[in-house]
Amino acid sequence: MKEITGGVCAPKGFKAGGIWCGIKAGSKKRDLALIYSEKSSDAAAMFTANRVKAASVLVSQEHLAGGKLRAIIANSGNANACTGQAGLDAARRMAELAAAELKTNPKEVAVASTGVIGVPLPIAAIESGVKPLVNSLHSGEEGHAAALEAIMTTDIRKKEIAVEIEIGGSRIAIGGMTKGSGMMHPNMATMLCFLTTDAAISPDALDKSLRLAVQRSFHRITIDGDTSTNDTVIIMANGEAGNPPITAGSAACEIFAAALEKCCIALARQMARDGEGATKLLTVTVKGAADEKTAEVMARTVAGSSLVKAACFGADANYGRVLCALGYAGPDFNLEKTGVVFKSRAGEIELFKNGMPVLFSEENAKRILSEEEIEIVADLGGGPGTSTAWGCDLTYDYVKINGDYRS
Amino acid sequence: MKEITGGVCAPKGFKAGGIWCGIKAGSKKRDLALIYSEKSSDAAAMFTANRVKAASVLVSQEHLAGGKLRAIIANSGNANACTGQAGLDAARRMAELAAAELKTNPKEVAVASTGVIGVPLPIAAIESGVKPLVNSLHSGEEGHAAALEAIMTTDIRKKEIAVEIEIGGSRIAIGGMTKGSGMMHPNMATMLCFLTTDAAISPDALDKSLRLAVQRSFHRITIDGDTSTNDTVIIMANGEAGNPPITAGSAACEIFAAALEKCCIALARQMARDGEGATKLLTVTVKGAADEKTAEVMARTVAGSSLVKAACFGADANYGRVLCALGYAGPDFNLEKTGVVFKSRAGEIELFKNGMPVLFSEENAKRILSEEEIEIVADLGGGPGTSTAWGCDLTYDYVKINGDYRS
Repeated sequence: MKEITGGVCAPKGFKAGGIWCGIKAGSKKRDLALIYSEKSSDAAAMFTANRVKAASVLVSQEHLAGGKLRAIIANSGNANACTGQAGLDAARRMAELAAAELKTNPKEVAVASTGVIGVPLPIAAIESGVKPLVNSLHSGEEGHAAALEAIMTTDIRKKEIAVEIEIGGSRIAIGGMTKGSGMMHPNMATMLCFLTTDAAISPDALDKSLRLAVQRSFHRITIDGDTSTNDTVIIMANGEAGNPPITAGSAACEIFAAALEKCCIALARQMARDGEGATKLLTVTVKGAADEKTAEVMARTVAGSSLVKAACFGADANYGRVLCALGYAGPDFNLEKTGVVFKSRAGEIELFKNGMPVLFSEENAKRILSEEEIEIVADLGGGPGTSTAWGCDLTYDYVKINGDYRS
Repeated sequence: MKEITGGVCAPKGFKAGGIWCGIKAGSKKRDLALIYSEKSSDAAAMFTANRVKAASVLVSQEHLAGGKLRAIIANSGNANACTGQAGLDAARRMAELAAAELKTNPKEVAVASTGVIGVPLPIAAIESGVKPLVNSLHSGEEGHAAALEAIMTTDIRKKEIAVEIEIGGSRIAIGGMTKGSGMMHPNMATMLCFLTTDAAISPDALDKSLRLAVQRSFHRITIDGDTSTNDTVIIMANGEAGNPPITAGSAACEIFAAALEKCCIALARQMARDGEGATKLLTVTVKGAADEKTAEVMARTVAGSSLVKAACFGADANYGRVLCALGYAGPDFNLEKTGVVFKSRAGEIELFKNGMPVLFSEENAKRILSEEEIEIVADLGGGPGTSTAWGCDLTYDYVKINGDYRS
């Protein structure tokens, strides 16, 4: 597997584009994106677990039921959530407008929105924007970059990936982009994630691979504990690579699923690093738990603790807060066998071992925790279960972004 | 019921004191507190749900099993948590030292600690401090105030209450103090709460009244989602009021329980208002839920949302974040029947009604949300369940306090 460029346009047969149509009223930043497959693709998707679902989510769920997609149209600047029947009508209209311009079936167009909740979607802006949007479709890096810009809101960094693998003599590409930096928590972040591949793969194998990859990536990041109304992950597979079709359970499927998981983890880490106001990427690994699921719950709880996050911001080796978070995560564990280590590329330092504090150099700890990527490893000394979660520090800027800005 | 002064020393037969013994090494702020009943009291208590329990909690649980107390000794500046066998020995020693000086049974002394986790408790400081501590015991406001100061950590405001009720011709007082401003979340806050009463009351009635009062007060506040290792609520009842003993299920018990609940709610609101870095008290009421428990879960989730809290700080009428938090709280509800109103003493404003945004004046909303006490009312339009939760805004100072300070 090697990393390549081009994002969602790296796989054969995909184009993308993005323009400003006026939804982001205060700026001329791109706000309308399109990802397009030249031929009909198989598609799989996952949506928010929030009981309040955006209109775009409800419409995409309907359209994805058919399992086929030609395009995804997405806007930023407005979430089209809590907008009643008018919102649903607007989301359907968005799909129809794109389908008409692309001369395809509206049911093969997915819709996604991100931005402020509870404000009517300015559908007129999208009506007048669809033609220039379709005209902006471009292959390669150029198309990918324009679409990616158009789905960003408070994101500062671009989150993108593309890899190439070989299956049965064919070169297969997987590409992806995400947006999301606030209101992010497992199941899922406020995130839109669009993935493309030119693999020929059965709908069943595609769906299973996506679910596993999402579970091990996006479901393990947390920014602030808020699960949004709009979370959407969609993958389109158009078969243009010409490989012998991948079926569920095959060795080829394992290779494909592993590559997809790597892509999703790369995107998840990029999102955590770009958490609202974040200055640091926080990786929390819990080992020695009863099983992977238990380890996951505990790793997520530590990564989500406001006090742990604030300590990381302050480069304070406050392992007591890590133990405290492990204690309220839910699962039982033996404190007497528990150890805590903080790591970064500047070194590692053991702070707690077998239920007892370890004497350590505060100066050394400060140096390690002042790096941009910090890892906390908690070993519970019990079973074989291990899991990793990703988060970020809690900073003044998180408060500033979310206190000052209607997002 | 009327409010009176004197805190935990308002009920007859109680004294309190507080001194600096050197646990808070960097300052001369009081760090050792004592609450003392002249005669043996019945006692009831509740402790943290965190699986990692401080040594002081484990020892107090043992001692409280007897149901009798003469005194509570508490220190700030050190949590005596995650300190292994040495920590347990130190907590036992603390009770023994106080008992020896007070000439009572160590089993009738409860211990409580608050402060940094994972640092050995400097027991020598307590050894040399116990005599001056006992000498500092004082009745009335003076004793109460000294003890209260000695349990404070990052607290800015004092949290105290005392009320008087009449039962069967006897005047009964209930007094209380709490500390706690960070790491606070239902079940319970990082809080110590000491309550006293001169009521004669059966152990059963005392225990039931305490549990109900705590459920409706401290379990409904949230500052940052972190549940501490040290949470402790203790009530001592010495019978000095001379009332006919209150038994569980009696009309007298209802009067007593209602007064205790009022005391605990008053203390809980004071704690939420003094949340680390807080500038505002946030009250969230959920109505129209299936039952009280469902309403409570939803109210707590809204009050605990980082995004709702940051919006309150910024006086931003971001009701979309309220709906979003209701959506991920867990229980199902009908968005089409849901309404959201923001209130303060400056007025009230309806933002969402029957599943649709309501046009509102941003200027008016800003004025209402700029007050120091804000209420959010979400009406789900379903069943009869109502509950209220309390929290505070998320501010730059929360990050500063928890990023810069090993607490």
